[in-house]
Amino acid sequence: MKQRAKVGILGGSGYSGLELTRLLLAHPLVDLDFVTSDRWVGELVSERTFLHGTSLRYLSNDSGLSQSTACDLVLLATPFETSLELVPRIELSRTKVIDLSGAFRLQNLERFERFYGRPHSSPHVLPQAAYGLAEYYAPTIASARLVANPGCYATAISLSLLPLLKESLVDPDSLVVTAASGVSGAGRKLAEPSLFMEVDQDLRAYKALGHQHSPEIEQTLSGAAGTEVHLAFTPHLLPMKRGILSTATCRLRPGVDHQRLNEAFVRHCQGRPFLRFLLNAEAVRISDVVHSPRCHLGFSCDERHVVVTSAIDNLLKGAASQAVQNLNLMQGFEETLGLLP
Amino acid sequence: MKQRAKVGILGGSGYSGLELTRLLLAHPLVDLDFVTSDRWVGELVSERTFLHGTSLRYLSNDSGLSQSTACDLVLLATPFETSLELVPRIELSRTKVIDLSGAFRLQNLERFERFYGRPHSSPHVLPQAAYGLAEYYAPTIASARLVANPGCYATAISLSLLPLLKESLVDPDSLVVTAASGVSGAGRKLAEPSLFMEVDQDLRAYKALGHQHSPEIEQTLSGAAGTEVHLAFTPHLLPMKRGILSTATCRLRPGVDHQRLNEAFVRHCQGRPFLRFLLNAEAVRISDVVHSPRCHLGFSCDERHVVVTSAIDNLLKGAASQAVQNLNLMQGFEETLGLLP
Amino acid sequence: MKQRAKVGILGGSGYSGLELTRLLLAHPLVDLDFVTSDRWVGELVSERTFLHGTSLRYLSNDSGLSQSTACDLVLLATPFETSLELVPRIELSRTKVIDLSGAFRLQNLERFERFYGRPHSSPHVLPQAAYGLAEYYAPTIASARLVANPGCYATAISLSLLPLLKESLVDPDSLVVTAASGVSGAGRKLAEPSLFMEVDQDLRAYKALGHQHSPEIEQTLSGAAGTEVHLAFTPHLLPMKRGILSTATCRLRPGVDHQRLNEAFVRHCQGRPFLRFLLNAEAVRISDVVHSPRCHLGFSCDERHVVVTSAIDNLLKGAASQAVQNLNLMQGFEETLGLLP
Amino acid sequence: MKQRAKVGILGGSGYSGLELTRLLLAHPLVDLDFVTSDRWVGELVSERTFLHGTSLRYLSNDSGLSQSTACDLVLLATPFETSLELVPRIELSRTKVIDLSGAFRLQNLERFERFYGRPHSSPHVLPQAAYGLAEYYAPTIASARLVANPGCYATAISLSLLPLLKESLVDPDSLVVTAASGVSGAGRKLAEPSLFMEVDQDLRAYKALGHQHSPEIEQTLSGAAGTEVHLAFTPHLLPMKRGILSTATCRLRPGVDHQRLNEAFVRHCQGRPFLRFLLNAEAVRISDVVHSPRCHLGFSCDERHVVVTSAIDNLLKGAASQAVQNLNLMQGFEETLGLLP
Repeated sequence: MKQRAKVGILGGSGYSGLELTRLLLAHPLVDLDFVTSDRWVGELVSERTFLHGTSLRYLSNDSGLSQSTACDLVLLATPFETSLELVPRIELSRTKVIDLSGAFRLQNLERFERFYGRPHSSPHVLPQAAYGLAEYYAPTIASARLVANPGCYATAISLSLLPLLKESLVDPDSLVVTAASGVSGAGRKLAEPSLFMEVDQDLRAYKALGHQHSPEIEQTLSGAAGTEVHLAFTPHLLPMKRGILSTATCRLRPGVDHQRLNEAFVRHCQGRPFLRFLLNAEAVRISDVVHSPRCHLGFSCDERHVVVTSAIDNLLKGAASQAVQNLNLMQGFEETLGLLP
Repeated sequence: MKQRAKVGILGGSGYSGLELTRLLLAHPLVDLDFVTSDRWVGELVSERTFLHGTSLRYLSNDSGLSQSTACDLVLLATPFETSLELVPRIELSRTKVIDLSGAFRLQNLERFERFYGRPHSSPHVLPQAAYGLAEYYAPTIASARLVANPGCYATAISLSLLPLLKESLVDPDSLVVTAASGVSGAGRKLAEPSLFMEVDQDLRAYKALGHQHSPEIEQTLSGAAGTEVHLAFTPHLLPMKRGILSTATCRLRPGVDHQRLNEAFVRHCQGRPFLRFLLNAEAVRISDVVHSPRCHLGFSCDERHVVVTSAIDNLLKGAASQAVQNLNLMQGFEETLGLLP
Repeated sequence: MKQRAKVGILGGSGYSGLELTRLLLAHPLVDLDFVTSDRWVGELVSERTFLHGTSLRYLSNDSGLSQSTACDLVLLATPFETSLELVPRIELSRTKVIDLSGAFRLQNLERFERFYGRPHSSPHVLPQAAYGLAEYYAPTIASARLVANPGCYATAISLSLLPLLKESLVDPDSLVVTAASGVSGAGRKLAEPSLFMEVDQDLRAYKALGHQHSPEIEQTLSGAAGTEVHLAFTPHLLPMKRGILSTATCRLRPGVDHQRLNEAFVRHCQGRPFLRFLLNAEAVRISDVVHSPRCHLGFSCDERHVVVTSAIDNLLKGAASQAVQNLNLMQGFEETLGLLP
Repeated sequence: MKQRAKVGILGGSGYSGLELTRLLLAHPLVDLDFVTSDRWVGELVSERTFLHGTSLRYLSNDSGLSQSTACDLVLLATPFETSLELVPRIELSRTKVIDLSGAFRLQNLERFERFYGRPHSSPHVLPQAAYGLAEYYAPTIASARLVANPGCYATAISLSLLPLLKESLVDPDSLVVTAASGVSGAGRKLAEPSLFMEVDQDLRAYKALGHQHSPEIEQTLSGAAGTEVHLAFTPHLLPMKRGILSTATCRLRPGVDHQRLNEAFVRHCQGRPFLRFLLNAEAVRISDVVHSPRCHLGFSCDERHVVVTSAIDNLLKGAASQAVQNLNLMQGFEETLGLLP
């Protein structure tokens, strides 16, 4: 029988941190040892999560950090700046770490600096960081001491394009992706663009061709394709709380038709319990995956192009539930434990 | 002084028809002679539009058709099947026609049949039909007896891509467009996909690579580019009543940079009072154009790609207000009359 | 150790039926034997619920009815007309029944006829029907063979007013309640008022002073108060998928102040794990209870009036999860089993 | 022919101020002389309103104040604290004033202090302030130098209850009102409760029994009824940008029936072009009045109670368009000028 895991959460008051807390409180083999929130220090966790069965109170990050040494694993749901500061203070040989921020996802320091606006402060830690896209890197994740949990867009987009690039079905130079995300993707900050009056009944692009998840996706896809892959990616802000829909349009390689595409997706989704491959691009919808740890995928094509859509809950498969998937892999638990019935 | 125009509306109970009725009731040089609605025959127009100052009652289509002979101009806001049936029954030499449906937009009969699912029943009328994208075809429209008002997606997308293709700034073989529309775009029909429970808090693609506005846009762009242009277009359904945002990603021709793109857009928007060119792709948002007859445009680029966003109200610039623009041109009125202060 | 229960669902394709199916598939002591849906006969239940771990296919109502004889308990999530027809065909001495419709809630036949628009077809069954407001009638429910699961508004409103009327804190002749519900409350029917275009960005009253849950609430409150209670109740339609907020305004009895009110609510919520009593009327919000089996309650008062707000998920505490609460009571399981961690 | 009016706006960047600016720029007999916004000083008004035909730039409040002396009339769309400070600095004998805030609505200083949280700083100005509920106080408004424009809730609720109280149809001691407003009612402030994530998909009460519009409504209704009227009023926050629906429940006086109620409403709506009396309480909906200067009214009743619903656009009839109604009355223009076709 598997041993239970003693686990802590640094950063429990963001939207992902709250979901993570709920998932871990209900996880059958996890003992949640602490949750930190500099904003809610001293408050009862049960008051914020509406979950009984816990008497935990929020700690400060510093108290949490001290308590980390007694934990098997600590998850950080903090801004990348905070992760950059905290992760090096955790003794990885003693306590494993899953970081939900972008701090340790990019192996290329130059691209990190360009997209995150500052030099990387802990380049020595990077080589230990496994990229936590659980469906594709399970063995590496299972033996890692530090896992960089993928970005929400990166998860949705990589899962939709990996079957195409791994099997050389599309021109790697032709990838155009637009995606739209609910507002929780921006985190819990008090900024004018996050006001109801600015978001409701609206749709708009942001960071066109410049989103920080682009290099992360390119890193994943280039690795899979064995060649440099470039992505033209434009995200959009949806007037919804949560959910991401990604729409990728790629030019087909000569000779590739519906059947070959279909076989590739069937093969890639088989045995991956969180992926669900649907009839076509139109069958994929945000409402079916919100509050679920799954990713739905589908494609449509004509003679020239394939359009792949994918949908996830940005706070779950795009953050918290994927972190639990990774925790399960790292602790030797069943991958779906605490996530799927 | 311009002579007033006596005008009728066939199909006044759809969402576009209602907007058209409101616009024409308030138009300073239009006398609205009749509005038809087989659904609301006999009801007061003022009860449905909440506009005083009219004692009109809805007529049947047949009564409207009879009354058409006494009108200078008739607008059809009917499904394309109805337009195909009614337009040939109007004597164009006596009464001008603006048709808001897709019945007379495509000059290529094969493409019409493929995208509208039936052969064209009045090919002899097609040569008389001017395409009513008012910003680009004003002279033709001004002298036409029959104008085919552009589709909503077609308006948003053509206006965003024409500057690029007319000035050979992008590879005409690289155009990828995604767009999202409010629900009114689907018209007032009682169908399960139009239920609140099916639409709210959701986003999904539909007719990926197969929307009937694609050939219409390709016809426009090919004409402008002087070469065959292919579009990979995927529309999406937004949980909103109205509004369209289109996001076009194109590969830049060698040597094209931000400045050249900027000059092209400035040039194309100048002197076109319904176009507003904004700072970048991110500045374009649906909420700024809803209930307005304008199209907002903006672009962002890197070394390889340009992303152009455009936003319109699908019921106004994408239908009713563009029809009034065309009416103004056809009657020799100021183009903005009854639309802009 | 408790024996497992073999359970069937008649009516699995409505919004409540779907939630019920999800809850029972995940219930640790329930074996789901069948689910019926005349609409989806033959389809996989897992395709509609996105839940693995079941190979059930939807049966017709008739097949389900035959299979009922082998079940410990059957739940009906059918329209009241269907329940009126099906329940008498189930042998209650063999198979227990929980009916989620309004068919067996009102003991007064006259009021049934007035509010449901037809005479009751099975008055002989009524005396066996226990009213399933689990918080207040647990003992009766535990020994019943037929339970009438309360209406969604009735649940929210009764839970908010019972503390006041049981303890004689307000004038029973002064109860004014308005409430607002998400669209799922209207069920899955294809009707114009349920279209997105008719519901979004709107709010309106319906069935003012005439909703069919009024007599059900009055029956409950009158029993509790020991006197005839009259309710002035106006429901509203919210542009949301799910959730109910009820706002009750009552005139205080002389001498009743904040402290006495507070004590009453504390007493009534204590030991009732699904009720959560919050700081004041303003702290109660729909978003905190959606997707949860709980009811949140709070009040504010001045010298004359008390305002009590209550919030539930209409499909859970207002339907499916309350049915599972009742099932738990009827089978001798812990009341929270399968509902709260 | 009426003389044109030279007009200024103090506070042009709030939601009401923006609507006011749009209305006055399009008003046929108004010359907009200045608009102030301490937030947007120096920016083009046309950039914020998307209206051409004006070259105005936002001034500071102080510059606006200096320019006021040359204006016939100045409107303040400022917070009540700012209005309290600015209005006394305007020479009323030279320049008329319409104040959209709550600063000069309550004649009772004690109630002002209780509901606005501070003593009134200019009690000497109060006697000159006419209450600007245009439908009922037109003569007073026409001759006033200072008009206090009613609050948004106050407008919706007073218009729905005045027919009942003026004609003694209901018990003045039995008035219970709930209402729900879109988020713009809270103004453009950067506060956590105004974030999209806090508002969307939610509904909740606020200021139950304690909203600052209560005394204003009671003042109006008491004057109309000739007796002290008490209101139990609870507002709610709707996940919408704009619009108010009010639902008032009152106990009928003996002998009052549907016909008498109907006659009263017909009489009160007759000749008041901004009021529209609909078939019943259920026919009144927010979506029909948003972006309109009208108030829709309807009622339903049984033997004991009447429920009156009313709907307005909180930024128009609840603020900006009512201010223009008042301006029209004060300048001797037609009441509907610039508002209705």
